[in-house]
Order: sequence, then C-alpha cells, then structure tokens
Amino acid sequence: MPAIEDLVTEFSRLPGIGRKTAQRLTFHLLQQSPEQAGRLAAALTAVADRVRPCTICGTPAETEHCEYCEDPRRDPTIVCVVEEPSAVGVLDRATGFRGRYHVLGGRLDPLAGVGPEALRLEELKRRVAEEGVLEIILATNPSMEGEVTATYIQQLLAGSEVRVTRLARGLPVGGDLEYVDGVTLAHALTARQEVR
Amino acid sequence: MPAIEDLVTEFSRLPGIGRKTAQRLTFHLLQQSPEQAGRLAAALTAVADRVRPCTICGTPAETEHCEYCEDPRRDPTIVCVVEEPSAVGVLDRATGFRGRYHVLGGRLDPLAGVGPEALRLEELKRRVAEEGVLEIILATNPSMEGEVTATYIQQLLAGSEVRVTRLARGLPVGGDLEYVDGVTLAHALTARQEVR
Repeated sequence: MPAIEDLVTEFSRLPGIGRKTAQRLTFHLLQQSPEQAGRLAAALTAVADRVRPCTICGTPAETEHCEYCEDPRRDPTIVCVVEEPSAVGVLDRATGFRGRYHVLGGRLDPLAGVGPEALRLEELKRRVAEEGVLEIILATNPSMEGEVTATYIQQLLAGSEVRVTRLARGLPVGGDLEYVDGVTLAHALTARQEVR
Repeated sequence: MPAIEDLVTEFSRLPGIGRKTAQRLTFHLLQQSPEQAGRLAAALTAVADRVRPCTICGTPAETEHCEYCEDPRRDPTIVCVVEEPSAVGVLDRATGFRGRYHVLGGRLDPLAGVGPEALRLEELKRRVAEEGVLEIILATNPSMEGEVTATYIQQLLAGSEVRVTRLARGLPVGGDLEYVDGVTLAHALTARQEVR
C-alpha cells in the first residue's frame, strides 16, 4: 500500500514523531472521513505556498512584511532579537512588548557547523545602520549556544551607537528554590537586586 | 497569519497532538523548504483520494480488494477478526498467519454509544455464510470492550457451523512474573498447560 507507506514516512520526518506514532496518526486519519486528511493537506499546501519570511525581520508572514513590521503603532527604534520564529509569538503574547523583532533563524553552533553566515546577521547590522534603531534586546535562548550567539552580536554591534541589552536571568517566577539548577541560582545571587 | 493558524489547528486535531506540539510541528515545517510541507500534503491527499476499506475485509487498500484478500496463496477458510486496521499489519508481520482478515472498525462500547450496528458484523456473517469459512479467530484487544465484542461475535455465529477460536491469553513472552498484572497471572494459572 504505497500511499499509506508514503504518509507514514512523511509523518515520521516531523520532529518528535517516530515510526509508531506516524503509523498511529496515519491509521487515525484512515478512520476519519477523507475530508480531515484533505483539510490538513490544504493547510500544509497553504503554508508551503503562501508563508515566507518577512523581508525585514524574518518572521513568517503571508505578506511581504509581517504583522509586527506592518504595525505603525509599534516602536521601530527597539528591536528584540530571537533565534527562532516561534519565539516571536511567545514573547509578544507574554510580555506586551511593543517594539519590532528580528529573527536570526538559528544560533551559532560551531560544533554543528553553524557559523555567523548562516544567521540573519547582515540584515540586523543593516537595520541598525539604516532604520534608526536605538536599542537591540538580545533574547536568544539561555543555553550555551544562545549565550555565544548573544556575545557575538554584542561584539558585532560594538562599533555602532546602538544600546545592546539582554533579557534578565535569575529565578523563574513561581519556581521553588529547591528545584532551581545551581548555575541559575549562582547567577541569581551575583545579579541580586536591592529592595527599596 | 491565518495559514499558520489553520495548520496549527489541523495538526492539533490529530490524536496525542496538543496545541504546543502542533505549533512546534508547524514552525519546524516553516524552517524547512516548502517542499517538505508539500510532500506531506501530497501524501495526505493521496491517502484521502485513493485509500478505501477493502470491500471484502475492511483493510485499507488502494484497490477494491486489499493485498490480503487478493493473495491467492492465502487460505480463505481461516479469517482473523480484528478491531482496527492497524492490527492487521502488526499481526501479519509478527505471526506469519496465512489466512484472511476481517476488520470490525471498532469495538462494542455501550457507554460510548457504540453498538453492533457500528461494526462490520453483517459483513462477517455474510462471509461466514457465503465464503466457506471454517474458522474464525477472534483477535480483538484483551480489554474489557474487546472481550465483550468477542463474546458478542461468538454468540452471533453460534448458529453456524464455523469453528470460533480466540487468541491465547497468558504471560507475555519475555516478561517478568513480578510485573505481570494479577488478572493475567490468574488467567495464566487457570489456563496452565501440561509440559511433556
């Protein structure tokens, strides 16, 4: 049954989906009306055909510029730099940030062969030089690679006038001190803030 | 971004895929070339368009009759009855069974409103009456609903000449006695077999 085998193979290419899960998904769809598989196929085709990175910031969009770059009420002088497009929505919903974004499309990872040329760094430099950006907020992940990437960008922009900041690190809100890892705890102690 | 939102919604309709996972899958595809999403869409469309239940046994097939019913080397007098199409491949690969199959399309579950009319039972009766079937192997799941379904079929076929058997229950091969549940253990004791 090549059609069924093909679908199992395509499902199992997705991250976190092994062969067993791919089979389960396929047989689930076989038990539904063909319309459900058709709707998923149509949604995939629409994304493949219509969604492209915003030509300014790299956020996926159906138009040349994304909803954030198009929004005239957003402050174009503050740009928040993230690794992946998925971080944009998360930050935007959680924080009420009203500036713009810049998606790097990954992180520096020399061991995996990902160098600066693989990231949207030239575009970032150009934006800083041409768009009157006053502040770059580095919102890379708090991982080793994220740190390295943030440091690289900091040095890249050292010659310009722009202010470079980073997301604060410390104890997660609502967390229990006992379960916080040692590195975070040490950082939280070093970066302790005065209470007035 | 309606195209992205639509794809997240369609992914999250799949079993075991919540909204977070659906977002992760969607953003994964956005980071790949559009071809990958296109291939998954094509595989889904092919399944939706071409795969239908075999008109004899109910196994999903791209032709009117499935590969098992079409195979002249298979014994048509022994029919193995399963709940779901996914069980057919599993049984066939693991056991070397060389008879035919019959897919019920579910199990009796009065609490969920699934009665006999929802299963392919009339088709099974007709096969027994018309196809010279000598043995029906009940291979429903060893769950409460599977047991009820098996008992129902046994009674349904009581008037015919056909021999009705069930898959043996007992200790799982390779298992550790300590971790086997009590009901299985009790059954294994009752159904103990003489060693020669």
